[in-house]
Amino acid sequence: MASIWLDKLKLPMTLVVLQVLFFILFAVFVDYSDDASPAAITPKTMNGNGTEPMEEETEGSNSLHAYYGMFQDVHVMIFIGFGFLMMFLKRYGFSSVGLNMLIAALAIQWATIIGGLVHNHGKSFTVDVTSMLTADFASAAVLITFGALLGKTSPLQMVIITVVEIVVFSVNEYIGVEVFKAVDIGGSMFVHAFGAYFGLAVSRVLYRDDVEKSDKEGSVYHSDMFAVIGSVFLWMFWPSFNSALAVEDAQHRAVLNTYFALAACCVATFAISSLVDRNGKFDMPFLSNKFKIHDTCGVNNLHGMPAIMAGITGAIVVAMADTKTYGTTLYRQFPAMAPTSSNDTDWSIMGLEPEPGKGRSAGQQAGYQIIALVVTVVIAIVSGLIVGFVLKCTPCLSQPSGSNLF
Amino acid sequence: MASIWLDKLKLPMTLVVLQVLFFILFAVFVDYSDDASPAAITPKTMNGNGTEPMEEETEGSNSLHAYYGMFQDVHVMIFIGFGFLMMFLKRYGFSSVGLNMLIAALAIQWATIIGGLVHNHGKSFTVDVTSMLTADFASAAVLITFGALLGKTSPLQMVIITVVEIVVFSVNEYIGVEVFKAVDIGGSMFVHAFGAYFGLAVSRVLYRDDVEKSDKEGSVYHSDMFAVIGSVFLWMFWPSFNSALAVEDAQHRAVLNTYFALAACCVATFAISSLVDRNGKFDMPFLSNKFKIHDTCGVNNLHGMPAIMAGITGAIVVAMADTKTYGTTLYRQFPAMAPTSSNDTDWSIMGLEPEPGKGRSAGQQAGYQIIALVVTVVIAIVSGLIVGFVLKCTPCLSQPSGSNLF
Amino acid sequence: MASIWLDKLKLPMTLVVLQVLFFILFAVFVDYSDDASPAAITPKTMNGNGTEPMEEETEGSNSLHAYYGMFQDVHVMIFIGFGFLMMFLKRYGFSSVGLNMLIAALAIQWATIIGGLVHNHGKSFTVDVTSMLTADFASAAVLITFGALLGKTSPLQMVIITVVEIVVFSVNEYIGVEVFKAVDIGGSMFVHAFGAYFGLAVSRVLYRDDVEKSDKEGSVYHSDMFAVIGSVFLWMFWPSFNSALAVEDAQHRAVLNTYFALAACCVATFAISSLVDRNGKFDMPFLSNKFKIHDTCGVNNLHGMPAIMAGITGAIVVAMADTKTYGTTLYRQFPAMAPTSSNDTDWSIMGLEPEPGKGRSAGQQAGYQIIALVVTVVIAIVSGLIVGFVLKCTPCLSQPSGSNLF
Repeated sequence: MASIWLDKLKLPMTLVVLQVLFFILFAVFVDYSDDASPAAITPKTMNGNGTEPMEEETEGSNSLHAYYGMFQDVHVMIFIGFGFLMMFLKRYGFSSVGLNMLIAALAIQWATIIGGLVHNHGKSFTVDVTSMLTADFASAAVLITFGALLGKTSPLQMVIITVVEIVVFSVNEYIGVEVFKAVDIGGSMFVHAFGAYFGLAVSRVLYRDDVEKSDKEGSVYHSDMFAVIGSVFLWMFWPSFNSALAVEDAQHRAVLNTYFALAACCVATFAISSLVDRNGKFDMPFLSNKFKIHDTCGVNNLHGMPAIMAGITGAIVVAMADTKTYGTTLYRQFPAMAPTSSNDTDWSIMGLEPEPGKGRSAGQQAGYQIIALVVTVVIAIVSGLIVGFVLKCTPCLSQPSGSNLF
Repeated sequence: MASIWLDKLKLPMTLVVLQVLFFILFAVFVDYSDDASPAAITPKTMNGNGTEPMEEETEGSNSLHAYYGMFQDVHVMIFIGFGFLMMFLKRYGFSSVGLNMLIAALAIQWATIIGGLVHNHGKSFTVDVTSMLTADFASAAVLITFGALLGKTSPLQMVIITVVEIVVFSVNEYIGVEVFKAVDIGGSMFVHAFGAYFGLAVSRVLYRDDVEKSDKEGSVYHSDMFAVIGSVFLWMFWPSFNSALAVEDAQHRAVLNTYFALAACCVATFAISSLVDRNGKFDMPFLSNKFKIHDTCGVNNLHGMPAIMAGITGAIVVAMADTKTYGTTLYRQFPAMAPTSSNDTDWSIMGLEPEPGKGRSAGQQAGYQIIALVVTVVIAIVSGLIVGFVLKCTPCLSQPSGSNLF
Repeated sequence: MASIWLDKLKLPMTLVVLQVLFFILFAVFVDYSDDASPAAITPKTMNGNGTEPMEEETEGSNSLHAYYGMFQDVHVMIFIGFGFLMMFLKRYGFSSVGLNMLIAALAIQWATIIGGLVHNHGKSFTVDVTSMLTADFASAAVLITFGALLGKTSPLQMVIITVVEIVVFSVNEYIGVEVFKAVDIGGSMFVHAFGAYFGLAVSRVLYRDDVEKSDKEGSVYHSDMFAVIGSVFLWMFWPSFNSALAVEDAQHRAVLNTYFALAACCVATFAISSLVDRNGKFDMPFLSNKFKIHDTCGVNNLHGMPAIMAGITGAIVVAMADTKTYGTTLYRQFPAMAPTSSNDTDWSIMGLEPEPGKGRSAGQQAGYQIIALVVTVVIAIVSGLIVGFVLKCTPCLSQPSGSNLF
């Protein structure tokens, strides 16, 4: 009886301890960015020149206005898109939406803290609307992992996995972005590939011989309809996901390319669906059933392999990029390709003042992109395997009986 | 037979009369704001100086662009969020979404008219995107009241309540904002506390001994799923609700604070839910069941008490606010704290030209915030009780039989 | 057996051929607009004047920022709004959402290509965020046609209809906008009237004596709830649909007018619904049932007649428009009414430099608006009849058995 009570207390206590830890870390390390901080009043005595009015911050200059719309699109993808997409497993409706929300809420806070600390080398850092965006991106990686483990892990295990994965995610993203200077605007490598292979590695260790199909894994009509809502929201807002952190004309291109690519993929998907279906009918849940046999929601097919292909394609494209085609945008998009010193080039003509780059050639940048991709997959698999083994050797983290799974 | 026909005519006739009244009042009192009015052509003869081109209105200067994105987020909260949240009562699905939509559509028009008349002392007034926002906020108060009366009032009664509540709401908001110069960006006091206590007061008078639980009050699986959709949409767009009418860096902070607070609350809620649940499972509808016993959808717990706590917290925080921390934003956020005359201060340095304030100290402003909160709760309860008694003494406004309730 | 395989191959092969065709046409004819193209680097040697910095493109000047928010609202209307609205037919849930998505994905790509070619007289053209908006508008016309044919056409027939309709749509829109210089911001004529009468004409030819009601045409509770989600999303984002392509104060007015008109229509609809319902209850699916008897989803009542009335009303209003009321906005909104030469007027004072117009009077513009409306309806009906006859005479395009319908 006492042990049952202890069992019941494990999850809520873990959540409370984590949330209190988040509060403390926020209080110690986090501040508002300049955009979110009040404009200081400069007293006359400190100004010296009393006639010069302080430059008033104009409405448009606040980064909130530039990013908030797309942030909300991404936010809807995380909580409606992923949440309802994962509802297709029978009787897991509430659990999946709820657990999706809990995991995302944990991941968002933890990613803000860990991401900020990693990028600022352990010093205090600031938050603004772009840090909200990157926190949502990080939670997307964890939710892709969640997809690979759906129906196979206890909530407590998922909470532990979330906490560990965000740390590894942030370190890997730091290595890719800051060390290799790789660029991954849509998150193919650092979000999709990382989340997928981390999750598949955990799954592999935990359920080596768990191949029998539980009868719970079927899907029912109405759960499927909610999954359709989820996937349509993911589909619609994908241009925002892929372009939110890009700049100006590159952002505009990212929106256009994603928009047309999604429309083309939609046509191709229905062509294949109609081909393989017995009656030549369209069947959206049928599509997902195709993938469900081996890894529940097809994380490898949906996120893993496409992300690797996207990473390789990105590297190929950057290998062919030059300033003749991309102009100054090339250096803003791939800062490491900018000349090492302003003296080498015609910055003054361009009216731009980027930081000096590393003077990489297109081929070099492509090489670093590939290295970042390989490192991401290796780190994801190795850390996922370790997390899987630790969870396997810590039986107290799992639910006592199979019927309470989830 | 004739009386049944008369009964049937009461609701549609009331709606038609109200809508015709709205048309007339719009025609008489409402005009477009400057932002929504065509730029006048100044003929040469009237200009005198023909060489000076009229300043062209630039795209970015139209207030539509600054507010429309967040307005649509709030709009989704009102019609999807509230609409589906209230679906959890068994068999009330269609009724609650439909009645929610009707009430909001009435409240939006009526609040535009009454709010405009009250703030302009009975003179004609203008509408723009911010008046759309405040009309949506007013409808939120009525929908919170609706939540307290769900399943207990006829549509006709709800229409009457809407018409009366919007008038009292607007007067109370005028008193709070214009007389006490209290500031309530997220609407804790004027929207949540007012709507909740108005509704609870009406409910108290109408159903003093109506404690037995109707078997209709249960909930079914799929209705609950729609309620989950509603609450997730409310959750996601709350940062927009809380920040839509704030300015610049204050708006950015409101977004950040709401975003992180919601994530933290989500974790805490699941911790508690997991603790009280028999099986240690997550159960989102379970959460709402907790609150359903006493006042249907927990209006006091969800809106009333939290709003009072928010109002008090706001007063405490403003009592500690000074220009050292908040700079010029303090005066834009709390205009009554601005110096009484521009001569007293260094406006010219700040490049700002706010209207002269009342020179309130932080403690004085905190006092007025508390007064506004107390007045709001008192007005809400007293007017709610009066509306309840009037409805109780006007049996022709209720539905003839219990089976047609709703 | 072979013929069954051939039958099964027809749809996927058609989709593959179309998609490959789209790829080729995109490669040959489509380029990024300036807003989406990288800023060119002007080398020193080519500039001549090395001291003058190139004008940096500022964040706000990219048209993406001005249009993307409203584009996403329209996008949600197309895929969630139309998709779920069409779910109310029993057992067609998945099919209608899926087929809606396929048709929209085809229409978006094809409309981009055909619309671009028509407006550029067969020469290559550019795409940007506004071309995404117009492509979504074109897909709305096809989806309205789809509504008139729901449950009566095979997917293959709908694909053929989509391909033909987009061509006729683009030609008609070109005639209306470029030849008659008619203005139709909300798409009443070119989208709603065209889509409705095209679909009704196809339906008339294909199903002349198909009046018996299939038992599949009923609706079930939960499908209806999804249809309610669809219609609420359409309702909420309509202000974006109607104003997305309008400018400045005209856009602001379009938002305000649509917002208040929708609220008033909502009240009127519930008054009528409550009047006709047996029990005086609100019943949202009941509303749609009213229209379902004759043309499935009431395309004539919902889109056809209202669009004609809107077109006529628009002509009446423009007949009374002058610069005293609308100022310079009049010429931006109705460019054909602008003076033929800048010498005639006071452009320099206004700080505007529009292209010279046609000097039309208000009455002339109204006449052209009516001509565009009549031409639209005639083209829609004639082309719809032709498509219907062709489909009727091409039995291989229809599904073999009724049970596979859809």
